[in-house]
Amino acid sequence: MKKRLQNSPIGIFDSGVGGLTVVKELLKILPNENIVYFGDTARVPYGTKSKDAVIKFSSEIIDFLTKKNVKLILVACNTASALALNTIRRKVGVPVVGVIEPGAVSAVSTTRNKKIGIIGTEATIKSKAYEKTIRKIAGSCKIVNRACPLFVPIAEEGWVDRKVSEIIAGEYLKLIKKAHADTVVLGCTHYPLLKNVIGRVLGKNIKLVDSAAEVARKVKNILQNKKLLNTLKGTGHMQFFVSDAPEKFKRIGKIFLGKKILSVSKVNIT
Amino acid sequence: MKKRLQNSPIGIFDSGVGGLTVVKELLKILPNENIVYFGDTARVPYGTKSKDAVIKFSSEIIDFLTKKNVKLILVACNTASALALNTIRRKVGVPVVGVIEPGAVSAVSTTRNKKIGIIGTEATIKSKAYEKTIRKIAGSCKIVNRACPLFVPIAEEGWVDRKVSEIIAGEYLKLIKKAHADTVVLGCTHYPLLKNVIGRVLGKNIKLVDSAAEVARKVKNILQNKKLLNTLKGTGHMQFFVSDAPEKFKRIGKIFLGKKILSVSKVNIT
Repeated sequence: MKKRLQNSPIGIFDSGVGGLTVVKELLKILPNENIVYFGDTARVPYGTKSKDAVIKFSSEIIDFLTKKNVKLILVACNTASALALNTIRRKVGVPVVGVIEPGAVSAVSTTRNKKIGIIGTEATIKSKAYEKTIRKIAGSCKIVNRACPLFVPIAEEGWVDRKVSEIIAGEYLKLIKKAHADTVVLGCTHYPLLKNVIGRVLGKNIKLVDSAAEVARKVKNILQNKKLLNTLKGTGHMQFFVSDAPEKFKRIGKIFLGKKILSVSKVNIT
Repeated sequence: MKKRLQNSPIGIFDSGVGGLTVVKELLKILPNENIVYFGDTARVPYGTKSKDAVIKFSSEIIDFLTKKNVKLILVACNTASALALNTIRRKVGVPVVGVIEPGAVSAVSTTRNKKIGIIGTEATIKSKAYEKTIRKIAGSCKIVNRACPLFVPIAEEGWVDRKVSEIIAGEYLKLIKKAHADTVVLGCTHYPLLKNVIGRVLGKNIKLVDSAAEVARKVKNILQNKKLLNTLKGTGHMQFFVSDAPEKFKRIGKIFLGKKILSVSKVNIT
């Protein structure tokens, strides 16, 4: 029974393609794990929706992943991690990992002057999930929050290195610069694509924290501790599911995953 | 029976708040009509989704509006008008009005040099709905299409008169300017909010066509011809329904409708 669970897939979900930046990191340190990924492309984005909606969407996805007999659930979406993690944990019997806590841990271990900037979607910023978690770990930190609603559409438009994106970033990051934060958390899985632009605006002395690598390490630790690491040799099997437009997911997903996506299936989960 | 139908509401839907620009025009010429409006804020935007998804979403909304005993359905969303109008017409027994045909009629009657630019969401532009309709009416026209995926998020961010929005518009409208179009169709209900920015980029000799006023006239004509105009005196009653975040709809909707929205109800239609 244990053996069967060990070789079960890791279930990962996101509102769309963004979570593939986390899958990319996971593949580096857990190349032989099987993965089932779900992208909710029919209802993307989550970051502008209400808490109720994000909880409802996440619950429906969890029901789908549970049927795939996953051994761990990784909520790769910052908005769902910020708003729905407790609900998801109550629903399932397997470990659930979100991206907020690993991102907060990274930020705290990175900052020298204890001034941290957090950027994310409207819903993530409004939830104050990063701020609360950082305060729990580090106590007194100065934290500056800023929602950046245009970053997701800019990244999806592929304008990852344009002057106009730099102007928009300049507008959003004004207060974070002014507060002299030395560390900024990229609190949305789309934002690593805009690292160059954000980096140019903030200057080279400010460290950008992208939780993906830390999240992957956390998943590995949990699987190790629970003796749930895959025992099979060779490269794991990846399955991709979306609620809409599989071809588009394939095309854009390649940029996020850093490699070709062979097949994507459309499923109806509502 | 006829009397009862006359005083039934007009059903209007959009993916979100954008359709309120059409309601605004409707109120000007049909102030005593009752209106039931549905904004699909849980699944907004439609413009980046597939045809299948837009048809499914539209069908679910039509089922909801039909239960409200509407006497006419106005599809105020360009994307749904472009992709789902035939499906909707097959589903219902009342007149169905979309925004594409009225927009195309306006464009053809506006252009002098028979060179027309069309801007809209990815899905609307891909459907070529405006182009096909214009060609049916006017035959040989030069038509330049351009999807402007960032216009909706910019309008929702409220950046309706900023330099950065002008730079983005400059990028999107480059080919339309180059083609010397004298008329540009604003093929998305969000775009009238960006009229100033778009106008500055295109220059004052280019006419912007916003289908809202033409759509309102068409609705009035149909109701007149079918003897379905409301017989009640005084101002009509408006009901607003959304699939998510009613408070946000109220707040942003005010900008689109040009007046305060008193009450919005959240309903689950899936």
